[in-house]
Amino acid sequence: MARIQYAERAMPLMSGLRRRFVSERPFDGLSIAACLHVTAETAVLVRSLRAGGARVSLAASNPLSTQDDIAQALQSDGIDVHARAGVDRKTYYQHIAAALNDGADLIVDDGGDLVSTVHTTGKPGVRGGCESTTTGVIRLRRMAADGALAFPMIAANDTPAKRMLDNVCGTGQSVIDGILRATNTLLAGKTVVIAGFGACGAGIAARAAGLGSRVIVTEVDPVRALDASLRGFPVLPMAEAAPVGEVFISATGSVDVIGAEHVAVMRDGAILANAGHFDAEIDVRALETAAVAVHSDARPHVDAYELADGRRLLLLAEGRVVNLVAAEGHPPEVMDLAFGILALSLAWLATNAGKLCADVHPVPPELDAEAAGLTLAAMGVRIDTLTEAQREYLDSWRIGS
Amino acid sequence: MARIQYAERAMPLMSGLRRRFVSERPFDGLSIAACLHVTAETAVLVRSLRAGGARVSLAASNPLSTQDDIAQALQSDGIDVHARAGVDRKTYYQHIAAALNDGADLIVDDGGDLVSTVHTTGKPGVRGGCESTTTGVIRLRRMAADGALAFPMIAANDTPAKRMLDNVCGTGQSVIDGILRATNTLLAGKTVVIAGFGACGAGIAARAAGLGSRVIVTEVDPVRALDASLRGFPVLPMAEAAPVGEVFISATGSVDVIGAEHVAVMRDGAILANAGHFDAEIDVRALETAAVAVHSDARPHVDAYELADGRRLLLLAEGRVVNLVAAEGHPPEVMDLAFGILALSLAWLATNAGKLCADVHPVPPELDAEAAGLTLAAMGVRIDTLTEAQREYLDSWRIGS
Amino acid sequence: MARIQYAERAMPLMSGLRRRFVSERPFDGLSIAACLHVTAETAVLVRSLRAGGARVSLAASNPLSTQDDIAQALQSDGIDVHARAGVDRKTYYQHIAAALNDGADLIVDDGGDLVSTVHTTGKPGVRGGCESTTTGVIRLRRMAADGALAFPMIAANDTPAKRMLDNVCGTGQSVIDGILRATNTLLAGKTVVIAGFGACGAGIAARAAGLGSRVIVTEVDPVRALDASLRGFPVLPMAEAAPVGEVFISATGSVDVIGAEHVAVMRDGAILANAGHFDAEIDVRALETAAVAVHSDARPHVDAYELADGRRLLLLAEGRVVNLVAAEGHPPEVMDLAFGILALSLAWLATNAGKLCADVHPVPPELDAEAAGLTLAAMGVRIDTLTEAQREYLDSWRIGS
Amino acid sequence: MARIQYAERAMPLMSGLRRRFVSERPFDGLSIAACLHVTAETAVLVRSLRAGGARVSLAASNPLSTQDDIAQALQSDGIDVHARAGVDRKTYYQHIAAALNDGADLIVDDGGDLVSTVHTTGKPGVRGGCESTTTGVIRLRRMAADGALAFPMIAANDTPAKRMLDNVCGTGQSVIDGILRATNTLLAGKTVVIAGFGACGAGIAARAAGLGSRVIVTEVDPVRALDASLRGFPVLPMAEAAPVGEVFISATGSVDVIGAEHVAVMRDGAILANAGHFDAEIDVRALETAAVAVHSDARPHVDAYELADGRRLLLLAEGRVVNLVAAEGHPPEVMDLAFGILALSLAWLATNAGKLCADVHPVPPELDAEAAGLTLAAMGVRIDTLTEAQREYLDSWRIGS
Repeated sequence: MARIQYAERAMPLMSGLRRRFVSERPFDGLSIAACLHVTAETAVLVRSLRAGGARVSLAASNPLSTQDDIAQALQSDGIDVHARAGVDRKTYYQHIAAALNDGADLIVDDGGDLVSTVHTTGKPGVRGGCESTTTGVIRLRRMAADGALAFPMIAANDTPAKRMLDNVCGTGQSVIDGILRATNTLLAGKTVVIAGFGACGAGIAARAAGLGSRVIVTEVDPVRALDASLRGFPVLPMAEAAPVGEVFISATGSVDVIGAEHVAVMRDGAILANAGHFDAEIDVRALETAAVAVHSDARPHVDAYELADGRRLLLLAEGRVVNLVAAEGHPPEVMDLAFGILALSLAWLATNAGKLCADVHPVPPELDAEAAGLTLAAMGVRIDTLTEAQREYLDSWRIGS
Repeated sequence: MARIQYAERAMPLMSGLRRRFVSERPFDGLSIAACLHVTAETAVLVRSLRAGGARVSLAASNPLSTQDDIAQALQSDGIDVHARAGVDRKTYYQHIAAALNDGADLIVDDGGDLVSTVHTTGKPGVRGGCESTTTGVIRLRRMAADGALAFPMIAANDTPAKRMLDNVCGTGQSVIDGILRATNTLLAGKTVVIAGFGACGAGIAARAAGLGSRVIVTEVDPVRALDASLRGFPVLPMAEAAPVGEVFISATGSVDVIGAEHVAVMRDGAILANAGHFDAEIDVRALETAAVAVHSDARPHVDAYELADGRRLLLLAEGRVVNLVAAEGHPPEVMDLAFGILALSLAWLATNAGKLCADVHPVPPELDAEAAGLTLAAMGVRIDTLTEAQREYLDSWRIGS
Repeated sequence: MARIQYAERAMPLMSGLRRRFVSERPFDGLSIAACLHVTAETAVLVRSLRAGGARVSLAASNPLSTQDDIAQALQSDGIDVHARAGVDRKTYYQHIAAALNDGADLIVDDGGDLVSTVHTTGKPGVRGGCESTTTGVIRLRRMAADGALAFPMIAANDTPAKRMLDNVCGTGQSVIDGILRATNTLLAGKTVVIAGFGACGAGIAARAAGLGSRVIVTEVDPVRALDASLRGFPVLPMAEAAPVGEVFISATGSVDVIGAEHVAVMRDGAILANAGHFDAEIDVRALETAAVAVHSDARPHVDAYELADGRRLLLLAEGRVVNLVAAEGHPPEVMDLAFGILALSLAWLATNAGKLCADVHPVPPELDAEAAGLTLAAMGVRIDTLTEAQREYLDSWRIGS
Repeated sequence: MARIQYAERAMPLMSGLRRRFVSERPFDGLSIAACLHVTAETAVLVRSLRAGGARVSLAASNPLSTQDDIAQALQSDGIDVHARAGVDRKTYYQHIAAALNDGADLIVDDGGDLVSTVHTTGKPGVRGGCESTTTGVIRLRRMAADGALAFPMIAANDTPAKRMLDNVCGTGQSVIDGILRATNTLLAGKTVVIAGFGACGAGIAARAAGLGSRVIVTEVDPVRALDASLRGFPVLPMAEAAPVGEVFISATGSVDVIGAEHVAVMRDGAILANAGHFDAEIDVRALETAAVAVHSDARPHVDAYELADGRRLLLLAEGRVVNLVAAEGHPPEVMDLAFGILALSLAWLATNAGKLCADVHPVPPELDAEAAGLTLAAMGVRIDTLTEAQREYLDSWRIGS
């Protein structure tokens, strides 16, 4: 199918892994149940697992994102797919249960519904799995803390390499992209206030500065605030940033970072965008309360809140995550690394699951390094390797003289 | 009309000028004939001129770009509009001639058709005007060299302030914007080859680097190549850049900068985009000749040229100017400054046209400074002014001790 | 004493802490034995501890660095100082033992000699301490692994805030500073090869790029190599970087990163500098072997190795750490934070040492945050604090919905 | 002589020119009189001219800068040198006159004293020459305006390539270098106020930002202020920048840019440095008036002005140009290009002087391009050349379709 092939060309790490899996067959004789968004990128992942010898069954992690033609293509490819766009809640869970029918050895989850179903329906054979979202990992940690987790799960949502590629670069770029698509505003010379200087905020800040913006950072964490300061960004309380900013971007994971007291002092024409997962960071109700009118006809994804004094504040994407709503979310390179880490983790679990306790485990650093190395190879970048003498020197130094 | 009002809000320099023109009335008693794209931004310009006392007549500089509702709104506003979308060539020139019927004192041209019509139809009263495009200025220079230009024209297409805002910032941003909208590729870590390091190329380079790309520059001019080198960009001949680049952007004003010999050695998946005015910079015919198939169904504005060896090269926007085709061209801030310079030049001509010879003149530097100052004011930026003592010091120093 | 006062002015975090210690008296009734370089900065630290109520005794951690006038000033200030420049090894250890004579409750060590003396001489009362160097922490970890460590020690050499200020900013700047002082070379347009992209290498790279250099990175670690790539730096094997580099900077912690095979292909005039702790990173013997003459008279800290083919390679600081030899090492801001973390850790230990096991412990994150906050305050930077509602939101989210 | 050889190795452009001059002999049969600082770099220039066939006589442009050993080395090399360190004013002018004794065909001046002597002593044979300083060019322009200039002079002080290499890169780097050598302050996180955003100020700003500073710009010129804004630098009046800055750098060419009213509100510990040619930019008398004491013993080139309220402001280099006083001024790469442009201009004059009127002429752009090209070649950078078809396209486009 054309769209899957296109995704495959944009995912060179996964393509390389597939070739490797074909020869190494890490999943021979194993069943893998996956609960994921049924998209072209997922199709690439699933086919790689199958190429590695796995029997794969797939359920949707969200019925709204299921692309039925992809589901069909996978089905006709021999994957056991249980997914259809727009099904109701009951069918959704039936699909997940069905994916487990063959007896899964390993599982891949996106949010925790598959793990939860495994535990409630009592499928006994699962040896371990991977969870790919932060939300799912939080659920797993609660289960583990309650002693309820029956097998080891790898938290594949966060590794050093993924944090750089995904948060710093992927989110960094796509948030800017979303703001430009929504407004076509010139960022050069604009004062851009970024709330939150975690990996996402730092990525957005670097990119806004690279486009000529004057970046101001707000933070509640002193270490992150120091980091921003040492990179040359002024750090201010939001109350002082609010009257000078021209573009506001929230990336905090917190709530009401931009609230009524800030709305009250913002400049006419200020642009408000949220880059956080939830739409809680900008207090939209405060905007609604303050506004005498809302003009939504100028451009898609732009609502101009007209205030009593004539100022207009431009809220993008209704305060929802701007890179997904107004742009296209992750560039394919991000999915390539994320699924590469998933696939490597599954292959590692195929051998090592039995040695792990029933807990949430990080991705082993050597797998992250391997995924980074494969990404570099896909980029055409070659690096040095330690000589024997260097390895000895480093080891002896670590041990002590 | 809502769209004109929206444009007005996005053009604070023009809004300020309008308020000033209302009180200063620089055009009292004068007729101005303008030949421009009939868009919301032009409406803002034309209404400012009228607010300054001018009788204004407007013809379209291109029938394809005429927005009829804007034309109507202006007409009902008392502007004498001669423009309709899609008219034929004959009507097009009739419209231009009609705009001159009232006897223009000053003119505004976009490309040279209005000036040419003035000279061929022998309208006698024109005291001077402004040309806003590079192409138009070239035509005017030829006319002046031939002794055929009957009145002074100001070349308002290029000033130091406009070059920064338009070429470095406007084109720099919108070209990146166009590439992201077309491909959603991750620029971080990508090798981006920029052909041409003029103001546009330098602007694109700074922005690509700001997004994490490794930028390589190609040039034919040693001073520009030295400039690129001293900013840390490697400069290579295109023959050496071709096999390492992942994104190619031409901004040279030249022809066949990317040709068959480069296509032959490019990497699979390389993206080719043109930022130059004409679609001559990438030799599309060389691509067509080399290709065994062209796949255009993956994404809009992306044609994947499949070569005999299996590589695919992704040509954006058919080699036409990528920021206009795949993004939205100039951000409004650029039009604000460009029309501000036009309006200030016209007001200056109203007083000074009689002192100028019939030639092509640059925008007086003090007008560029004034436009820059108004832009700064609109941005909320305040600057210092020389004290009397400083002015004396600088003057004495220039004169000598 | 003037020099101590000057240091105090340059260490606002420590000055603030001192004022706080005066009112809070965290060390009332406690003895602290410190083994540190006897410099003006150390004097500031020691006086702050004393201001907090401690009896302090001080020995030198290296007799070569002892500044006798500082020692005297502290002595006359009531500090019990056992240090004199240039003493022999036996006296050195006698000094350390003497510092313990009063019966130390807490200790501060720099390299491990004080801890080692405590353990061999059997001083029983020590409740805990801080080690400020990486080397010392390695010794401590070995002791802990052998079960030989008798009390808790805090590894104060490395925290997130210190890594940024010290490695990224401090080393980043001072290495560039050392190269400029040694050579006065223009970095703009130069190809600078940085071996190692840890915090130090990344800091040097950012600064070299900021001065207009074209930076190339070499690495053995794929995650760090990916990091460098995603920031736009080309990553190459050293064998390929060697013939194109004009300035080479090693920051790897490894050995023979620049060796005979690289010397063989380097450009005439190439500059070689080491930023690593040990002088093992550049294989100086390989240079000596390859050279037909060494010219050392042109500039201090520059040895021009003339090779048989006429090329000259310029080795800086004999391959020793260039920022210490050719510049002044850490800017005072770095010492301010480092000693601030030490002082806060000691104050925390005064209360909490009893709760810790006899092992090597990291600095508690809240102390690092506190030090970062004090640094921000000294810089005049203010940040936001979480509202009650935000704190609840974040807590609830962490717990789960 | 060793020092001249060292300079020659650091000036690859000049070395290349010398080889060319040896084969092309552009100065065969001509006498050149030069009035320049007698340094190793000048020796390289003078020997290149001589290698091109010229008889060269050299006088000092300032007796304080004459290095007698260099003078002797040149003398014994067959150059006719009239210079000795420390001579009085009368001898100084006698030396200049003596340099003209042989009958100069071409001259090289540094400040205008040689040209002035030529005109007052009535040496008739001079066909033209080059002036290498801005001050000298101003004197020449006055002479030309008065009709007093008897032959053509080329203003070799300023070309596009030299402005980049000299002002942006050379001054940019060496000013930062001077501040670091004087203070060892950490620039990361510091607020650096740069007065003046010409080529020097822009170069300093880029480098300070590259080292992690937060840069603020002050300007009186709106176009330059807009330039700074569009690069993301906040632009403020000095009155508002004064209380927030931690490092102040003046690069305006004006007077009293930092005055009593700013001193009154500056932060304790603020560093004041001047990068302008004259020591008039910081009002040192205002500092002296405000101070109750001046402490100069902490570090060389640092005077701490203690104010009545206890604040101390640190004036570097007594307000004189900081990169010359506290660092080493131009990196050798700058002198290489500057003297390369001089040498190429002289060679061009040897052929073309007769075609020029007696006026001040800019360096012909093709010579600047040639010097840039030679610099690129010395850097190892290769660029593209226009194909025949491209040249035709560009020509036709310029002429019009």
